[in-house]
Amino acid sequence: MNDLLVRPRRVYVSRKIEFNAAHRLFNPEWPDSENTAIYGKCSNKHGHGHNYLLEITLSGIVDRNTGFLFDLKELKAILEEEIINRFDHKHLNHDVGELQECVPTTEVLCVLIWDILEQRLRNINNRELALHEVKIHETGKNSVRYLGE
Amino acid sequence: MNDLLVRPRRVYVSRKIEFNAAHRLFNPEWPDSENTAIYGKCSNKHGHGHNYLLEITLSGIVDRNTGFLFDLKELKAILEEEIINRFDHKHLNHDVGELQECVPTTEVLCVLIWDILEQRLRNINNRELALHEVKIHETGKNSVRYLGE
Amino acid sequence: MNDLLVRPRRVYVSRKIEFNAAHRLFNPEWPDSENTAIYGKCSNKHGHGHNYLLEITLSGIVDRNTGFLFDLKELKAILEEEIINRFDHKHLNHDVGELQECVPTTEVLCVLIWDILEQRLRNINNRELALHEVKIHETGKNSVRYLGE
Amino acid sequence: MNDLLVRPRRVYVSRKIEFNAAHRLFNPEWPDSENTAIYGKCSNKHGHGHNYLLEITLSGIVDRNTGFLFDLKELKAILEEEIINRFDHKHLNHDVGELQECVPTTEVLCVLIWDILEQRLRNINNRELALHEVKIHETGKNSVRYLGE
Amino acid sequence: MNDLLVRPRRVYVSRKIEFNAAHRLFNPEWPDSENTAIYGKCSNKHGHGHNYLLEITLSGIVDRNTGFLFDLKELKAILEEEIINRFDHKHLNHDVGELQECVPTTEVLCVLIWDILEQRLRNINNRELALHEVKIHETGKNSVRYLGE
Amino acid sequence: MNDLLVRPRRVYVSRKIEFNAAHRLFNPEWPDSENTAIYGKCSNKHGHGHNYLLEITLSGIVDRNTGFLFDLKELKAILEEEIINRFDHKHLNHDVGELQECVPTTEVLCVLIWDILEQRLRNINNRELALHEVKIHETGKNSVRYLGE
Repeated sequence: MNDLLVRPRRVYVSRKIEFNAAHRLFNPEWPDSENTAIYGKCSNKHGHGHNYLLEITLSGIVDRNTGFLFDLKELKAILEEEIINRFDHKHLNHDVGELQECVPTTEVLCVLIWDILEQRLRNINNRELALHEVKIHETGKNSVRYLGE
Repeated sequence: MNDLLVRPRRVYVSRKIEFNAAHRLFNPEWPDSENTAIYGKCSNKHGHGHNYLLEITLSGIVDRNTGFLFDLKELKAILEEEIINRFDHKHLNHDVGELQECVPTTEVLCVLIWDILEQRLRNINNRELALHEVKIHETGKNSVRYLGE
Repeated sequence: MNDLLVRPRRVYVSRKIEFNAAHRLFNPEWPDSENTAIYGKCSNKHGHGHNYLLEITLSGIVDRNTGFLFDLKELKAILEEEIINRFDHKHLNHDVGELQECVPTTEVLCVLIWDILEQRLRNINNRELALHEVKIHETGKNSVRYLGE
Repeated sequence: MNDLLVRPRRVYVSRKIEFNAAHRLFNPEWPDSENTAIYGKCSNKHGHGHNYLLEITLSGIVDRNTGFLFDLKELKAILEEEIINRFDHKHLNHDVGELQECVPTTEVLCVLIWDILEQRLRNINNRELALHEVKIHETGKNSVRYLGE
Repeated sequence: MNDLLVRPRRVYVSRKIEFNAAHRLFNPEWPDSENTAIYGKCSNKHGHGHNYLLEITLSGIVDRNTGFLFDLKELKAILEEEIINRFDHKHLNHDVGELQECVPTTEVLCVLIWDILEQRLRNINNRELALHEVKIHETGKNSVRYLGE
Repeated sequence: MNDLLVRPRRVYVSRKIEFNAAHRLFNPEWPDSENTAIYGKCSNKHGHGHNYLLEITLSGIVDRNTGFLFDLKELKAILEEEIINRFDHKHLNHDVGELQECVPTTEVLCVLIWDILEQRLRNINNRELALHEVKIHETGKNSVRYLGE
C-alpha cells in the first residue's frame, strides 16, 4: 500500500481550534497614562475579549503504513488538554499562571502556546515530527504567527 | 432617473459591525452551585470574551431620488455612537449601565441593542424606514436574532 | 434581574454543526439513462460526498431567570445524539435507515432532519419553544431551508 | 420512493454566484456638489468596483419523483445567461442597458435582478415554483435583500 | 509598459477549486480491528465524504509584457482536466486509478495531486514557472500542504 | 514583565484591509485583438471591479516592554494613508499615478504595494522590523503574494 510514500514526503498538517477568552493589555510597572498611550482602549480596566482562532501546524514525513503524518485524534486530545483547559472561557490576566508576569498581547500568547506545544510534542517518538507554526487570529483582521525563531 | 423605483419597492439593508467584549454569565441572586449548574464555564469568575459580530437590518421603501434605503454613512455613524462606544473593548457586566441588572447572555444583548436602535431610528423622518432585525453571532457556531416581537 | 425580559421577547437562536457524509443521487425505480439525465455526475455509482453544514434555528420566549431561550449544552447533546450519530461519517444511501426508500437530495435530507428534531423537541416542557428552521449548506454555493410548511 | 414527500413540503433553495463589476453612484440630473454630498467617494468620476456576491432563493414544493425543488443545472444555466452575461466584468453605468436611467446602487441592482429573474422563472411549468428572494452582498459588510414587495 | 517589472519580480499566485468526493480510510492488508483502531469512524464500510477545497500555488517571475505570472484561464483548464475530471463526484477508493493501492488520506491525496500537476506544468515553456504548493482543506478545521520536499 | 521575551522572538504579524476599485486589463501598445486574446473579458472597455482584500505581514522581534511587534494603530494609519487614500473607490487605470504605465494585474498591484510600503516602513526605527509579505485576494478564488524577491 501507499507506494506514493516510498519516497519520503514532508507535509505540513494544520488544525484549527477556537477558544473564547478575556484579556487586558496593561503593564502594572507603568503609570496609567503610559498604559493608555500605548494600549488605548485595550487597557480598559475590566478587560474585553475575543474568539481566538488558533491554527497549529505540524511538519514531518508521512507514515507509509497509515498515510498520516500524525493521528489527528491524538492531536485533538493534546490541544484539549494543553489549550482548551488552560485558556478557554478564562481571563488571560487572572486565570493563566504562565501569563501572570506578562502583558497578554497576541504576540506573547503565540510565543507561550509555541513553548507549551513544542515541549509536549518533543517527546513523541515519530520520525521527524515537529511543531512548525503557531498562528492566532485575534480578530478577522489581525493575526500573529510564530515559527520558533 | 430610477424608473425602476416608480413602483414602491420594499428592501432589507444589512450592515455588519464587530465589537470585542468580555462577559460573565452569573446571576448574583443565585448560589454559586446554581450558577455553575446553569452556566457552566461561562460563569468563571473573571469572565471570558468574544468577537461579537452584529448584523443590523433595516427595512423600508427605496428612495427614488438617491436609490438608497438609507445613507450607510449615517447608519455607520449611529452604530459607532450607540454600539461601538457602548460595548467595544468593554466588560459587559461591569462597564455597560443598561446591563447592570442583567445576565449578559447573547439573547439579552440582542434585545438590548434592538431597544437602543429602535428608539434611535424611530425619530428619523423617512418613509416607512424601520429597524427590521438585530442579529448577533457570538461565535462562528452560535447566533441569536430578535425582530421586536 | 433581567428587567429587559419582563415584556416577553421572542428570539431565534441558531446553532451550526457539520457532518461529513457520502451520498448518491439515484432512483432504483428508473433506468440508468433516466438517472443520468436527471442527476448527472451526482449519480456516479460509488457516490461522492460533502461537508454538510447544518444550521438549526429554535424560536421562543427568552426565559427571564436564565436569560436563555434554551440551554445550548442541551441542544448540543440532542444534535450529537440525533444528527452526528445518525449521519456523520456515513454513506447516506447505505447507512441511514430513514433514507432507505429515498433519494438523498439536500431537500429530502432537510425535511428528514426537521421531522427528527421536531419530534424530539416537541416533548420539551418550555414556554413556546419550537423548531423554527432547518438549513443545510451542501457546498459553499448551495443551500436548502425547511420551516415545516 | 421518497415517502417523506407524500405530504407536500415547501422548501427554500438558495444558490450563490459572483460577478465582478464596476459602478459609479452619480445622478446626472444633479450638480456635482449634490452628488458628492449624497454619494461621497462612491461618486468618483471613473467609478470603482466590487465582487458582487448574489444569492438567489427559490421556493416551492419538492418534487416527489426527483427529490429536487428545481434542477440546479437548469438554474445555473439561467443565471449564466441572465446574470453573468449581463453583469460580469462590466461597468454597470456604461454596459448594462437596463441601468442607463438608473443610479446603480445595490438596492436598484437588487430590484432589477428580481424583475429579470421573476419574469424568466414565471414561465417554468412547475408546481408553485417561485422566486423568493434576491440578496446581494456588495462587500463583506453590506448587503441588500428584495422579496418582491 | 510595466516599468515596475524591469527588475524581475518573483510572485506566488494561488487558485482555489473545490471537488466533492467520498473516501474511506481502510488498509486491506490489516484486520478490521486494526483499521478501527487507527482510522475510527473514518473506516466505516461504505465511506463518507467531503467538500475538498484545493489551493494550488505557482511561483515564478512576472511576465513584463502581460503583467501575469501565468494565464489563469490556462490554469483553470489544466485544473478542470487533471483535478475535476479525476476527482469530482467520485469515490476516491473506487474511481481513481492512481489511488487503488493507497489509503486516501488527505496527506496521500495532497502528494498525488502534486505529482500530477508538477508533471503537467514541467512542460510549460515559461521562465522559471514552477508548482510551489498544493494545499487541501478537508474540512474547515483540517488542512494539509505539500511543497515537493 | 514579559520574561517569555527575554529570548528574542521573531514573529509575523498580519493585518487585513479591503479596498474597492475598478480596473481594466489592457495594453495600449497592442491591437484590440491581442488584448482580447490575452485578457478576454477583463479587457472590456469600461473596466470592471473588485473588493480587493489586502493582507500585509510584518516580521521582527517582539518588543519586550510592550509585547508588541509594532503598534497596530500606527500600522492602520499608514495603511489608511498609503493604501486607502490611493486605491479605495478609484479606477486603477485612471486614478493612480504609479499605474499609468502599467497593466493593473493583481501581480503588478501586489509589487507596487510592496514598493510603497517597503519604502515607508524602512524609515521606522525599530529593531529588525521589516515588511515580510504583501498578499492580495482579488476574488475568493484568486490571490497573489509578493515577498520582495
